[in-house]
Amino acid sequence: MISRVMAVDLRAHVGRRVRVAGWVHRRRELKSVTFLVVRDRTGVAQVVTSGSGMPEETVIEVCGDVVASTQAPGGSEITSPEITVLSAPTAAPPFDLYRPALSATLPTILDNAAVALRHPRLRAQFEIAAASVAGFRSTLDSLGFTETHTPKIVASATESGANVFGIDYFGQRAYLAQSPQFYKQAMVGVFERVYEVGPVFRAEPHDTARHLAQYTSLDAELGFISSHFDVMAVLRSAVAGMLAAAAARTQALATLEVTVPQVPSEIPWIHFADAQRLLGVEDEPDLAPEHERRLSAWALAEHGSEFLFVTGYPMVKRPFYTHPDPARPAYSNSFDLLFRGLELVTGGQRLHTHSAYLEALAARGLPAEAYASYLDVFKYGMPPHGGFALGLERWTSRLLGVANIRQTTLFPRDLHRLNP
Amino acid sequence: MISRVMAVDLRAHVGRRVRVAGWVHRRRELKSVTFLVVRDRTGVAQVVTSGSGMPEETVIEVCGDVVASTQAPGGSEITSPEITVLSAPTAAPPFDLYRPALSATLPTILDNAAVALRHPRLRAQFEIAAASVAGFRSTLDSLGFTETHTPKIVASATESGANVFGIDYFGQRAYLAQSPQFYKQAMVGVFERVYEVGPVFRAEPHDTARHLAQYTSLDAELGFISSHFDVMAVLRSAVAGMLAAAAARTQALATLEVTVPQVPSEIPWIHFADAQRLLGVEDEPDLAPEHERRLSAWALAEHGSEFLFVTGYPMVKRPFYTHPDPARPAYSNSFDLLFRGLELVTGGQRLHTHSAYLEALAARGLPAEAYASYLDVFKYGMPPHGGFALGLERWTSRLLGVANIRQTTLFPRDLHRLNP
Repeated sequence: MISRVMAVDLRAHVGRRVRVAGWVHRRRELKSVTFLVVRDRTGVAQVVTSGSGMPEETVIEVCGDVVASTQAPGGSEITSPEITVLSAPTAAPPFDLYRPALSATLPTILDNAAVALRHPRLRAQFEIAAASVAGFRSTLDSLGFTETHTPKIVASATESGANVFGIDYFGQRAYLAQSPQFYKQAMVGVFERVYEVGPVFRAEPHDTARHLAQYTSLDAELGFISSHFDVMAVLRSAVAGMLAAAAARTQALATLEVTVPQVPSEIPWIHFADAQRLLGVEDEPDLAPEHERRLSAWALAEHGSEFLFVTGYPMVKRPFYTHPDPARPAYSNSFDLLFRGLELVTGGQRLHTHSAYLEALAARGLPAEAYASYLDVFKYGMPPHGGFALGLERWTSRLLGVANIRQTTLFPRDLHRLNP
Repeated sequence: MISRVMAVDLRAHVGRRVRVAGWVHRRRELKSVTFLVVRDRTGVAQVVTSGSGMPEETVIEVCGDVVASTQAPGGSEITSPEITVLSAPTAAPPFDLYRPALSATLPTILDNAAVALRHPRLRAQFEIAAASVAGFRSTLDSLGFTETHTPKIVASATESGANVFGIDYFGQRAYLAQSPQFYKQAMVGVFERVYEVGPVFRAEPHDTARHLAQYTSLDAELGFISSHFDVMAVLRSAVAGMLAAAAARTQALATLEVTVPQVPSEIPWIHFADAQRLLGVEDEPDLAPEHERRLSAWALAEHGSEFLFVTGYPMVKRPFYTHPDPARPAYSNSFDLLFRGLELVTGGQRLHTHSAYLEALAARGLPAEAYASYLDVFKYGMPPHGGFALGLERWTSRLLGVANIRQTTLFPRDLHRLNP
């Protein structure tokens, strides 16, 4: 059998007989001729045939001659086809996949995700997501990081008491991990530099466009740092690697009509206190969404950067494991990375001595016993370290300008959705 | 500050002043001189100093002169050191990390995993695991696969009714996914070729050396196949990529005293019925462990291969979504990959038409309603497809000759273990 040619490569085979395979994306039956547009994972190929075509989403294999055609998509089409039906649909999708945009409500799209995702625009979003993750990994691999796989079933809800899913673990009470935070810190003691790409779980009672019950967290942690600025430098590299990998997906980006932004060789940063001064705000321990938008606008105007680090958030707004700024202990050695007006990544330096943890927990009235298994590792010598976490679905939605994070999740889980 | 040199690169810096950082792996105090062996993520560096050293696992930074030394590990050592303590331990580990092998019981090692994993041999195992996964991904990326991230919280226990963890999902009953099987099949309709590396969960009541409640599954699925032999060809490439990436970790392999096996350009295969004939077994629907060992021995003797495919397992022993052999419908288009006497991977061709699924469920007395959300996608045209799943911890344990799968899991979860 002739080996299969992908739709995107068809033009290079003009004058030859080839085999293509895919789904009937669209059929157009004219008086004397029928056009079948065949969709595969790379694009579409037009087949010129006679007689009636098959319904949309029929899976077919076509052997035929490739001829140049200025009218066909991609500049070539297939004539004299022999068509084999590999699989016939038994129902029509609840929307037309061949239209430029999927015309259906979000619940309809999500209820029918498995078929909705066949739309080239939706497929392209997840190609960009996959490329971004590949860029994240290859960048960190090149920087000496080791990938880890840590437990998603944990004995105690350590990150915060609320928003945790309970699970019956062989008769014991257990929880779904809200983050790999403690494991990645512990693994700094082994590999010095670690990352993990995996699911995290939040029993999130908020029904908003940016909350999910499960999302994909890109976590990194590194030891032997001087301060959070070393973590920010690694994050800058990771983001640059993610953007470069996404930018290489030219076809997906063209489908989405999106251009990947540039990241400066050094992302500008502003201290939280200076940011408040700039904004004319006082005595607030956090930034409001409007403040983040204004700071992003400032970074773009002042530094020509769509990215901005805000550093030194007040300790009161950061988790107990956050390292304070030695010079100004009310502020922390932490940061947020803003992108186009929104927070994209959170990170910082962590405490690294056993006594510092005991003090931090006591100061917040948290019981050290509940954290015993976590604290143990700090008895055995841990270097100064820090890290960051980035939500993949959030990344993709902001990069591609998608409003609702559910649209950048293959099969989202939220307060109301457990299917498909 | 001088930039940091890793222990493995020290020899290349003879004659220069450098900075190294890491943990005191061992101190040896002689009459007139003290040797500190400093461990970092790449190896160890010997520091020659005077006075008393610090306790093992102290985190230190050392600036000093690199001099050639035939007695020192790696052929060089650091003299005239200025040592800074970055972090002092408050307790001694419950075992000596500097001994060639960790001398402690498995429960002690697992209870103290965060510090036990610092042992160079244990660290090396997980470097091989990480390299294997990177090789898996890069191979499949090069073959046009797309990486997916699918839900781990699902509405029904679809793979099998038993061995599933229940979860309270906002007041609804839900389950932890036992595999991404149905999602990866559905995504063949979108990307044609997909893979996922992620946690899967089994409420495994067996307390054995090869069962875990959570493990890392390397899943792949591809469309437009002719039979399971197309899946086996992709699996062979994936295994070759994993082995090549592992083989490139020369230092970790040297630490472990392990050689990576060769995979033949085509892995030999034998049909289940022929395997039984060869073994002198009759009318058993499955292979016993002893049979797998004998078949592996046969493949090594006959074909010089440590890998062997057994194809065509009886339909009665395979899941309902398995595609039968069109020529002999009591046998399936499925396979196991045996490696060194043990099953390493399971895979096969799946059913791809809606009617075939309805028939298969009916024949097994399974209710179609429970599978409604899964079955829907087969209404809309799915190509012939198949795939496989490989457990990372099992892969690493067999590749490295580790007896218990818990030793190739950073923080294992089983019937009795939910900590650390």
